[in-house]
Amino acid sequence: MRAIADAARASASEAGLPLHEIVAVGCAAPGPLDHRTGLVHEAPNLVGFIEFPLGARLSEALAGVSVFVDRDTAMAAIAERAIGAARGARDFVYVTVSTGLGGTIVSDGRMLRGTTNTAGEIGHWPVAFQLDTSRDAGADLPRCGCGSFGCAESLAAGRNVADAYGVSDAAEVFAAAARGEARAVTIITRAERALANLAVGLVNVLNPALIVVGGSIADHQPGHVLDPMRRAIAERAFRAPAAAVRLVPAALGADVGMLGAVFAARERLSGRGEWFL
Amino acid sequence: MRAIADAARASASEAGLPLHEIVAVGCAAPGPLDHRTGLVHEAPNLVGFIEFPLGARLSEALAGVSVFVDRDTAMAAIAERAIGAARGARDFVYVTVSTGLGGTIVSDGRMLRGTTNTAGEIGHWPVAFQLDTSRDAGADLPRCGCGSFGCAESLAAGRNVADAYGVSDAAEVFAAAARGEARAVTIITRAERALANLAVGLVNVLNPALIVVGGSIADHQPGHVLDPMRRAIAERAFRAPAAAVRLVPAALGADVGMLGAVFAARERLSGRGEWFL
Repeated sequence: MRAIADAARASASEAGLPLHEIVAVGCAAPGPLDHRTGLVHEAPNLVGFIEFPLGARLSEALAGVSVFVDRDTAMAAIAERAIGAARGARDFVYVTVSTGLGGTIVSDGRMLRGTTNTAGEIGHWPVAFQLDTSRDAGADLPRCGCGSFGCAESLAAGRNVADAYGVSDAAEVFAAAARGEARAVTIITRAERALANLAVGLVNVLNPALIVVGGSIADHQPGHVLDPMRRAIAERAFRAPAAAVRLVPAALGADVGMLGAVFAARERLSGRGEWFL
Repeated sequence: MRAIADAARASASEAGLPLHEIVAVGCAAPGPLDHRTGLVHEAPNLVGFIEFPLGARLSEALAGVSVFVDRDTAMAAIAERAIGAARGARDFVYVTVSTGLGGTIVSDGRMLRGTTNTAGEIGHWPVAFQLDTSRDAGADLPRCGCGSFGCAESLAAGRNVADAYGVSDAAEVFAAAARGEARAVTIITRAERALANLAVGLVNVLNPALIVVGGSIADHQPGHVLDPMRRAIAERAFRAPAAAVRLVPAALGADVGMLGAVFAARERLSGRGEWFL
């Protein structure tokens, strides 16, 4: 919390802006969270962010300036829609395959929020279970950071791929798999199968015109992320929605969350409260 | 097609209504389909309904009356929202576990349609794949009527459960499982695991206030449908959306599609075109 506030103050200072001249701050955070209250419910990959009032605390630390919090993927979707790969799209899904795996759904120009504003956690639609019914449904499946099992995140996100191999960086696992190391191949194959199921599900359930895939793993390993997703859509999704969708890489790189936070803060400060296209 | 038209004419005749006094007809059909054009793209459980202009054909057969087609689950959701278990809900999912497995998503009072109107096919979000990577991703998994594998429908719908056991009625499989017959227990356990994954996914991705579960299998086997779904939500979904959702049985029974078709025809005839709450 202190590091976040320090970074914000350092940025303001670097830009020569005193805090009282800043009218709003946008803050991207992992979810699930409630963007209207700025409360982070839990964050599977960050210790201690449980029912944490991020918006209120950051506002206090920045002399009371208005802080608008939203999920990192919501900010990314806003930025990609405004100036990136989703320009003009009214029905799209932003997917990030990074440390974690998440997304944001935009349907008919509106961000899908749900009844308490936590909708969109596509990395936690379970895509696997143990078929051997003599065993527990979650047997042999890595436990997800959210506490469940079978989530696409638990099988395909960077942190989870690295953990499964016992290293700190997923890049090592991809490199080992490329050399044919058996355990790495198994982990990467499962990751691809999880992503394939996710992609087919997104197309069948949401019928988007566009799926934008960003995040460090997607950026560095498109052959293990975008390719299996595209292949699965072509081979396994219903034909009508499969023909209507394009799956493309994100355009804005690692700063996408910050860019989106700027747009979001401007829009929400204007009183629109929600983000419509 | 002829049987549908004959049934419609018989109903009109029974009600003492000549066709020219009928201003609109509502027609529920399996999807994916486009409710605006009345075109059924494909129907996994009906032979021959491929890119079939159901609305136009039925209109021709009924002296040119306006026919409003929509997915069976969309009609059911409309009826449950108007006079059934979803009264007052703005964020809900209607799920049917019947011959097939499908649903309709309502978010912030609007039916989720997607870019070409086929959204909502929740039975075809794949929830399983082969974890043993020495084998094909779909090995040992029954092929779904949609051509894919791992779909919740392929593992938990009535027709699929019956097919897996080699009988014509899923009730026989539930009865055999109740007697402890090993193969039946395996099939029903997999069905429950698939429904559990589906339920967790709906809660994490859509954050609904309500999940209404109907269909013949759900009606007759709540202990194998609603119970495992509720348990999975409590044990495995994110806490915030899990606390916000209720999962309840549908209220309107087998006629729900017909009831919804009446409401849908009336609303769409009024020019609203889409159905908002």
